[in-house]
Amino acid sequence: MVTVDLIIEIADKIVLIKRVNPPYGWALPGGFVDYGESLETAAVREAAEEINLEVTLREQFHTYSDPDRDPRQHTVTTVYIAEAKGTPKPGDDAGEARLFSQDTIPADMAFDHEKIIEDYFRYCSGESKKGILGLRLEKP
Amino acid sequence: MVTVDLIIEIADKIVLIKRVNPPYGWALPGGFVDYGESLETAAVREAAEEINLEVTLREQFHTYSDPDRDPRQHTVTTVYIAEAKGTPKPGDDAGEARLFSQDTIPADMAFDHEKIIEDYFRYCSGESKKGILGLRLEKP
Repeated sequence: MVTVDLIIEIADKIVLIKRVNPPYGWALPGGFVDYGESLETAAVREAAEEINLEVTLREQFHTYSDPDRDPRQHTVTTVYIAEAKGTPKPGDDAGEARLFSQDTIPADMAFDHEKIIEDYFRYCSGESKKGILGLRLEKP
Repeated sequence: MVTVDLIIEIADKIVLIKRVNPPYGWALPGGFVDYGESLETAAVREAAEEINLEVTLREQFHTYSDPDRDPRQHTVTTVYIAEAKGTPKPGDDAGEARLFSQDTIPADMAFDHEKIIEDYFRYCSGESKKGILGLRLEKP
């Protein structure tokens, strides 16, 4: 199954949603890609559905595919960095949608999103993607 | 459907295979990812099957998902840059496996691989991924 997730920057914070379906916890906004839909179209659609904001995609960050990353089934997710303005309002799949700075990221994160967010903040701090993600290639 | 493709560098050339199944033409080595298999595992496996060489993955390049990129069905492919040594020998799915330099890339390329290879050579020449691939995000 192919999914997308978004790291949505609003000012100097990012948006997380609180999941109302298992696996519970906080998560990046995102969801399943429809057949015939590009990843970019899916990312913009999912942001609109989950936090009711129109986002501008800035960059494709990385595609994560660890078979254990989603406890429900094997999903491959492409993560985009996007930006938006305004206040996120939770859609149907989200109990809450809130802004978090790096030092307030909650501990109870679903999926591998804690890892993805950690990769993102390392990237923001100037580390190269190759440096952050390259070693993971050595041990598939 | 999730696939991987590889840009395999051997010295200053890259490996292309000649497809024996439709769509015909030259293509990057690659193929379908098995359920429960990471993209990285699939990439290394496909290289072994298609050109009989052990590759070292260097970098995840980009994930391409245009619904029209594969005439058979909608596939999402993650492209890796890898390196190898030795002489590629075609596997079951390949009629030929040959090395090409930038100025000898054949015209009859399958899928969107001509575009992918063009992106790759722009990246090699020092352009940033954001510069090469960023605009594509504007028009999903």
